[in-house]
Amino acid sequence: MSINRLSTFKLSTDRFGGLIIHSKNESIQDASTFASKLLESIPQWSQMGTRIIWFHVSRKCSQWLPVLCENEFRFHHVSHDGDTVVMYRWLLKNKPSPVPPYAHTMVGVGGIVLNANEELLVVLQRFGAAETLKLPGGYVEPQEDLSDAAIREVEEETGVKTKFLSCVSFRHTHKANFDCSDLYFLVHLEPLTTAINENCDEVIDARWISIPDFLKHPQVNFLNRLFIETFLKNKQNEINIKKYDGSHTATREPYSFYHVQNKS
Amino acid sequence: MSINRLSTFKLSTDRFGGLIIHSKNESIQDASTFASKLLESIPQWSQMGTRIIWFHVSRKCSQWLPVLCENEFRFHHVSHDGDTVVMYRWLLKNKPSPVPPYAHTMVGVGGIVLNANEELLVVLQRFGAAETLKLPGGYVEPQEDLSDAAIREVEEETGVKTKFLSCVSFRHTHKANFDCSDLYFLVHLEPLTTAINENCDEVIDARWISIPDFLKHPQVNFLNRLFIETFLKNKQNEINIKKYDGSHTATREPYSFYHVQNKS
Repeated sequence: MSINRLSTFKLSTDRFGGLIIHSKNESIQDASTFASKLLESIPQWSQMGTRIIWFHVSRKCSQWLPVLCENEFRFHHVSHDGDTVVMYRWLLKNKPSPVPPYAHTMVGVGGIVLNANEELLVVLQRFGAAETLKLPGGYVEPQEDLSDAAIREVEEETGVKTKFLSCVSFRHTHKANFDCSDLYFLVHLEPLTTAINENCDEVIDARWISIPDFLKHPQVNFLNRLFIETFLKNKQNEINIKKYDGSHTATREPYSFYHVQNKS
Repeated sequence: MSINRLSTFKLSTDRFGGLIIHSKNESIQDASTFASKLLESIPQWSQMGTRIIWFHVSRKCSQWLPVLCENEFRFHHVSHDGDTVVMYRWLLKNKPSPVPPYAHTMVGVGGIVLNANEELLVVLQRFGAAETLKLPGGYVEPQEDLSDAAIREVEEETGVKTKFLSCVSFRHTHKANFDCSDLYFLVHLEPLTTAINENCDEVIDARWISIPDFLKHPQVNFLNRLFIETFLKNKQNEINIKKYDGSHTATREPYSFYHVQNKS
């Protein structure tokens, strides 16, 4: 990312030939000064052959937003901290914009934790009027790995510390929270402690329950039963989804690769 | 979602006791009229015990945005069509906001397609200066299933029509496009046609290549080799990740449940 001063804005570039302006790097905040700078710059950018312009606008510079909306900029996404909205305009009139939509999938995890007596760790939660007995779990945080999220959520909801063993299965659905799709991963964890200590607002009760009792419990829904039945079958067959931790050869960014493994 | 007119805005409610205002349902656009309505409403909402207020603001009503930013509203997310930004304010001063962050994971798919000669379908793509030989694939669209996305992307990039067989493995990484995490699923597809017809801007060439040639090819990166090696091992062991299609007992929303299955 190189910083140029070809226009009156401080510009950085991305690897796709886009130009990026961050409101945090600019001193102007008022709408009319911003509007004149923008209207002066757009033809220059077009002449330079720029394909796309991105504006990262923080709440402090919100006066810029009506100006950008009036000048054919569209919203793309919001920063993880909720302080910045990102808008863009595709400048090539004769080509459709190749900008991919932003993330639209919520990712959650559920922990399958069995103690030495083959009892399952479960939580009782209230959804509206109904109470449900289910696996502990919740949403993955930004930049968090699936396995770490499962360990964190289980401890938050039950007080039980665990370590990661394997991924068991996952469910993909649509039209979930915020009109997003939803991926929910079932993760097999080994308990390192067993004392229950639920101090979490979302959970009414946490307990160890025998698997037969869980499978026939009236407050357990079909999917939670399916998750456990599948888990038991794979456990018997000694197959599961193992995690391999690596890092990208070029960027050095770590990744986790999950793949099926059987005992043999 | 019921519509009330307790305040001067048209309000709907969510199941968590939040109030929602859509700019599309309101006639005002100018900042000062909006500001007076907002300042009049906030104390009323607080008195009613409202926990959270959501504003869905379309580009047409962008004059509302500076007013909302000045009144402690934060950005939450952008609609899939890029026309609306959603802002919220948590009204309970003595409790932290439980609003989960919006989706922050991009989801992609890669297709593993073998023809009758055990040749693999691959594409040549350019990333900056470098050319890479890789599996056809791309991002999942909003509301699209993993399997449908893989079939669509393979056909767009190569012209080959396929059907879904199983999921093979997946990779989770962070700090990818738009500062998102990234889940990439490898999907085994059966070819229904074999003629190559690449008419996709992103792809330089598409071809069938023998697996040994792919695995030793200098333009194939480590991860793509790992994906195919893992696939071959599971194929030999006759284990894979099968898809079970169901629908939620309460909401009737369809879901796909992926779990490991071996031949036995």
